[in-house]
Amino acid sequence: MMLKNDLLLRAARGEVVERAPVWLMRQAGRILPEYRATRAKAKNFVEFVKNPELASEVTIQPVDILGVDAAIIFSDILVIPEAMGLPYEMIEAKGPRFQNTIQTKADIDKLKIADAGDLDYVMKALTLTKKELNGRVPLIGFCGAPWTILAYMVEGSGSKTFSKAKQFLYTQPVLAHALLDKITQSSINYLKGQVTAGADLLQIFDSWAGVLNEKMYYEFSLQYISKICTALSPLVPVTIFAKDAHYAIKKISETSCASIGLDWTIDPLKARQEAGKKTLQGNADPCLLYSDEKTIISETHAMLEAFGIDRYICNLGHGLYPDIDKEKVKLFVQVVKEYKW
Amino acid sequence: MMLKNDLLLRAARGEVVERAPVWLMRQAGRILPEYRATRAKAKNFVEFVKNPELASEVTIQPVDILGVDAAIIFSDILVIPEAMGLPYEMIEAKGPRFQNTIQTKADIDKLKIADAGDLDYVMKALTLTKKELNGRVPLIGFCGAPWTILAYMVEGSGSKTFSKAKQFLYTQPVLAHALLDKITQSSINYLKGQVTAGADLLQIFDSWAGVLNEKMYYEFSLQYISKICTALSPLVPVTIFAKDAHYAIKKISETSCASIGLDWTIDPLKARQEAGKKTLQGNADPCLLYSDEKTIISETHAMLEAFGIDRYICNLGHGLYPDIDKEKVKLFVQVVKEYKW
Repeated sequence: MMLKNDLLLRAARGEVVERAPVWLMRQAGRILPEYRATRAKAKNFVEFVKNPELASEVTIQPVDILGVDAAIIFSDILVIPEAMGLPYEMIEAKGPRFQNTIQTKADIDKLKIADAGDLDYVMKALTLTKKELNGRVPLIGFCGAPWTILAYMVEGSGSKTFSKAKQFLYTQPVLAHALLDKITQSSINYLKGQVTAGADLLQIFDSWAGVLNEKMYYEFSLQYISKICTALSPLVPVTIFAKDAHYAIKKISETSCASIGLDWTIDPLKARQEAGKKTLQGNADPCLLYSDEKTIISETHAMLEAFGIDRYICNLGHGLYPDIDKEKVKLFVQVVKEYKW
Repeated sequence: MMLKNDLLLRAARGEVVERAPVWLMRQAGRILPEYRATRAKAKNFVEFVKNPELASEVTIQPVDILGVDAAIIFSDILVIPEAMGLPYEMIEAKGPRFQNTIQTKADIDKLKIADAGDLDYVMKALTLTKKELNGRVPLIGFCGAPWTILAYMVEGSGSKTFSKAKQFLYTQPVLAHALLDKITQSSINYLKGQVTAGADLLQIFDSWAGVLNEKMYYEFSLQYISKICTALSPLVPVTIFAKDAHYAIKKISETSCASIGLDWTIDPLKARQEAGKKTLQGNADPCLLYSDEKTIISETHAMLEAFGIDRYICNLGHGLYPDIDKEKVKLFVQVVKEYKW
């Protein structure tokens, strides 16, 4: 199937583009009334994620409504712990909760290495979405970085500090590496399945990168991300988004990733210096979209000018917040598309 | 009163020291059973903070028990909103809550500019502590940075994103500056009172610096911190600790502060390059203190070597977590004191 709009893939590969592609993290989400209507059809979040028809529906909504240049499959990074034998639930307004957490070698031994078949519902959602998209835009697949997944499996929930998960790294480094290795193998199997099912590009989300110091980050996170990149990069472009890991851009650029996601604390010019020939993705503050139209336009223009047209994918520096007005999101997309590159 | 141990003040001023001074953020706190015993005498956290005898007692405990080179007055950054007319309560295991928040010009107009007299209980606690310390170690006073205080006053509680507070900056910049100005004036009055009452050094905590991007940080935070520094630096050394504002070290060094606090994501050598002649303070990951003794010793040694003896104050990169073993904290202090500088 030929893509009618392959801007994202060309930008990721560093090829010539007419303008930068634009999509938004959490574009399939609560900012859209259409999403909330679909979400209401499932009895809870986990069931919602496991329903390929509903997941596919909300994946395509932002392509229709916002006019973005890519779809990203609606799912959750925590499907991996569940596929490995550690189920989660999503508590409204609080976030994920694991009834059981990982603390001992026995806990890790009990976990299975997941394969794509264990996540058949995601594969079905991708296949269905790919068919429905009919080549309009590329489809992005994703997983969480092994450190971020470990953080949830050990901590058992979200946390400001992830001090329990970090305590595990400091006190049980051998077990931590054993767990990271199992998560990495599962993630590679999972992402290979996603490519087979139709994903055109993959993004690895390291949401909790920023709670680690530089040395710990390389030892417990980036080396595993790098393994995933090495396994997947021959198939499709891979984006690494390590939130708040401002110190790691150069090392991230030494992996086989195609592009690097940046949060809004990173200066585009500094990132260009450190990232070599890698494509950069980002990095507007989601809160910018609370502003008036004039501010959104001028700040977005400033960002586009700073990044330039080459090797750039326009996005936010983090996911959309649920209370952002969808008209402001549409404006942001429109500003990028109409910019005189 | 001559100080018997003035290492902290000499290090802050960039003078010659025999070894680096060491103290820890949140050293007066739940890691000490003695703190918990004193805390139990007050009916809630706010009453605890307002009781000069109890506040003084827990301020001195870590000097006796941990052997640190400084005391920091036990208080809370949220005494400033309260003194301005916006009271808070502290919910166990959840954090601060404000019944009323700031949203409109009328809300801001109603706030008073606090003076030291409005915070008489802190002045009394400082006077009492200064007397009890009897010159053993310097006494540190502190306040929150105006942006961090605004963040709580607008958001009404802690938050992962502080998206409501940031929305206020993006949509109501004129009101935000009016509020920041009132907080800044209150903070200057408050800190001048602290110096009169005996504080030998002041620290400004910008706990939520890291949720702002660089441009917003300079406009809505650093310029107000700088005004506080300009007002107080002629009296005592001032430390600025802007957590997660990795991009701002150079600009912070251009204020009249004496020293700059660093979180654990900052490389000491990089900070030295950017901070010019300013003293640096930090920056061990609090979670290091969950480790075994060997790891604590080797990682602390590595940090001391990286910073060097000149213009350095040893500390953590954030406050101690309540479940850290106090024996590990004592070890950390001892390692610094016994290091062959």
